[in-house]
Amino acid sequence: MLSPIAWSTPPKKYGPWESVVSLLTEGLVKRGIDVTLFATADSHTSAKLHAVCPRPYEEDKNIMIKVYECLHISEVFERANEFDIIHNHFDYLPLTYSALVDTPVLTTIHGISSRKTLPVYKKYNNRSFYVSISDAYRCNELDYIATVRHGIEIESFHFNDKPQDYLLFLSRIHKDKGAKEAIEVAKKTGKTLRIAGFIADEAYFEKEVKPHIDNKQIIYEGHVEPVRKKELLSNAYALLHMINYDEAFGLGVVEAMASGTPVIAMNRGSMPELIRDGETGYLVNSVDEAAQAVQRVASISRKKCRESVEKRFSVDRMVDDYIKVYETILEKCKRESERPWGHYEVLMERPGYKVKVLTVLPQGEISLQRHSHRNEHWYIVKGKGVVTKNGDKIRVLEGDSVDIPVNEVHRIKNIDNDNLIFIEIARGDYFGEDDIVRLEDKYGRA
Amino acid sequence: MLSPIAWSTPPKKYGPWESVVSLLTEGLVKRGIDVTLFATADSHTSAKLHAVCPRPYEEDKNIMIKVYECLHISEVFERANEFDIIHNHFDYLPLTYSALVDTPVLTTIHGISSRKTLPVYKKYNNRSFYVSISDAYRCNELDYIATVRHGIEIESFHFNDKPQDYLLFLSRIHKDKGAKEAIEVAKKTGKTLRIAGFIADEAYFEKEVKPHIDNKQIIYEGHVEPVRKKELLSNAYALLHMINYDEAFGLGVVEAMASGTPVIAMNRGSMPELIRDGETGYLVNSVDEAAQAVQRVASISRKKCRESVEKRFSVDRMVDDYIKVYETILEKCKRESERPWGHYEVLMERPGYKVKVLTVLPQGEISLQRHSHRNEHWYIVKGKGVVTKNGDKIRVLEGDSVDIPVNEVHRIKNIDNDNLIFIEIARGDYFGEDDIVRLEDKYGRA
Repeated sequence: MLSPIAWSTPPKKYGPWESVVSLLTEGLVKRGIDVTLFATADSHTSAKLHAVCPRPYEEDKNIMIKVYECLHISEVFERANEFDIIHNHFDYLPLTYSALVDTPVLTTIHGISSRKTLPVYKKYNNRSFYVSISDAYRCNELDYIATVRHGIEIESFHFNDKPQDYLLFLSRIHKDKGAKEAIEVAKKTGKTLRIAGFIADEAYFEKEVKPHIDNKQIIYEGHVEPVRKKELLSNAYALLHMINYDEAFGLGVVEAMASGTPVIAMNRGSMPELIRDGETGYLVNSVDEAAQAVQRVASISRKKCRESVEKRFSVDRMVDDYIKVYETILEKCKRESERPWGHYEVLMERPGYKVKVLTVLPQGEISLQRHSHRNEHWYIVKGKGVVTKNGDKIRVLEGDSVDIPVNEVHRIKNIDNDNLIFIEIARGDYFGEDDIVRLEDKYGRA
Repeated sequence: MLSPIAWSTPPKKYGPWESVVSLLTEGLVKRGIDVTLFATADSHTSAKLHAVCPRPYEEDKNIMIKVYECLHISEVFERANEFDIIHNHFDYLPLTYSALVDTPVLTTIHGISSRKTLPVYKKYNNRSFYVSISDAYRCNELDYIATVRHGIEIESFHFNDKPQDYLLFLSRIHKDKGAKEAIEVAKKTGKTLRIAGFIADEAYFEKEVKPHIDNKQIIYEGHVEPVRKKELLSNAYALLHMINYDEAFGLGVVEAMASGTPVIAMNRGSMPELIRDGETGYLVNSVDEAAQAVQRVASISRKKCRESVEKRFSVDRMVDDYIKVYETILEKCKRESERPWGHYEVLMERPGYKVKVLTVLPQGEISLQRHSHRNEHWYIVKGKGVVTKNGDKIRVLEGDSVDIPVNEVHRIKNIDNDNLIFIEIARGDYFGEDDIVRLEDKYGRA
């Protein structure tokens, strides 16, 4: 599990990507999965922690970001053969190491900071696996193995069925997030609006927000701590989420519903995937529609809001979804050389000869077959078997060898309770798997 | 050859690292060495060019540096198995890919931009090879395989034995480079000083240089084109290089001497490695000493300056030096499995068995030997040989196999004019090379 190093995992205060990584990692460990977490050294986890970056670079300006990014990432790939899957939450840079290892790499695309990073995602599109965090946040130039929406720690949000009368804006103060539109809705409906969040765009705040703050109808609470945030969420009459962009996911939206608070949101980005219109809030297309929706909030069951999140946005559901993705990847990456009777590995192939090691499972047997373009020399290194060669049955043990000329009908069967392992040296002019004429097969492949 | 992508290779105007890469690459190709140059797409080379970055990022601000850096670097490593050596001129980032490939990586450390990048160089110190560009520019926390000083295209510098009377300052205008001190030397000696170079520190220029410019004694020529630069160099009475830091290398210093112009330089950094005191210039410790040296410039033979550069700083010498480094690396990385009779490769090793492919050169023969901990099964895939087994001599051809029990004395000899290749499958409890008791050996190893 490759976490960013901007913040610790989990983050002390802010750090949405690191927060998701932490919830997922702890959830996987609880399921008994062996996880190594690559994160800053001050991170906390029940997984195995591997760290090269001592502190989050956002908290220590002496850390040269580029140096610790590449050291952090290379550590994962240098240990790649210890892992079945590398799950990357670190944006595009790790992809450029991924072709140098055999371990499959899954990348959760938390955000595409710029279209200029797309060339990297596109280059590795065919050999890597991508997860989107909502259907809305898919780039049509990339292929995705799944959408996995984030889960939240629902138990940590207090459900409140008896709210106060205020509307809530909870997000950073920026045009994208629609604080201005939230104020307009409050004024049209005569309701109180509480605004909470850090100022991400000072000019926007000065122009569109500050002039309206009267600390009676329009109240600015500043950048609130987690405890106050949860109070605000559970006591609100409704959350206003009047976004002006296609938001990939809205953690605040889900957290509001978990607290029992319906959400009135612009019908764009991932909002239709988070809110059930008329059931857990309203999807609207304008300030006027939002104002009308405020009048109808009373008809929404706060209990249903909570239940909807319990069903759709729990950490358990997120962990389930990712486990399914991991299983799909492992299935896709299963060696082509898996066979019903066992498996083989090519050790060497050169013009004129090819060396394999074959493992036959207990009671497994390869099909009765012959080849037109190669002879084979078998040497048993482990186990007990019976070789069929032109109708003869020959018992073989470790140290025995058998020669099979071109066109001779042959098979081998494991007659023991342990694996039968033998080295096959083929000589000839063609070694393709299609030079196998199957005359009889236990697994129906003849 | 991994070049930076800040500028094209060679650079159109400025780009010292790319310039060295280009001279080296072209020199290697002339020697018949097969080189692939990884550089911007607008580069020019007689090597094979591989490019992913369309233009130098310094010339196109739309190029997202981090994206093209990692795409550019990963391309080299993804093709690593095509190359005997990867020669990195791209600073520390490529090192973090180097442990994922088997190809040896040589890094010329052109400059360490910050001590904060040292953790990367230190991490890869033991598995990578470093070249310093002067003895002065070595970091005592790193190991270096060699110092290779840059070479210049001497023929492109016009030798002039009849200079004019001015002193020359040729460098960027920055405290490090000592324009202020050059002006002081000129004033103390009453000589004219021509200053050429771009202004790297505007405040320094305003305070220390501009007030002295009178276009009579102190003349500022601006950032000059290559043609004017060469004129200025060959017509100068002496070059003043009054540096205030330990400069790693001074291309301008070498270029001046190539033009026949002696150099008066502060005795620090790489200067003693470039200038022969009293022979091609003077090494000084103060402005006063520099002023005294100006009086003695006439005693320096301009011809000797040129000859010294021809001998010590030609591209040919640099190419020779790098070829020596490449040879040393290839020798160090030579497979441990090289033997006087040929070589072997381990295909697989598991508890209980080990598979090798062995190649015996024409007329080669392994020592007469036995093993205490393993038996061996040999299967010939190419060539003709004679196996000695307990005193018997057995002729073997491809398709033949021989079993050698524990403790049985044996050897194989290639009796043909082509390589003899056989697969060896050993079974036992120990496979170390020290379980070989040599009874007789053609190569004196018994």
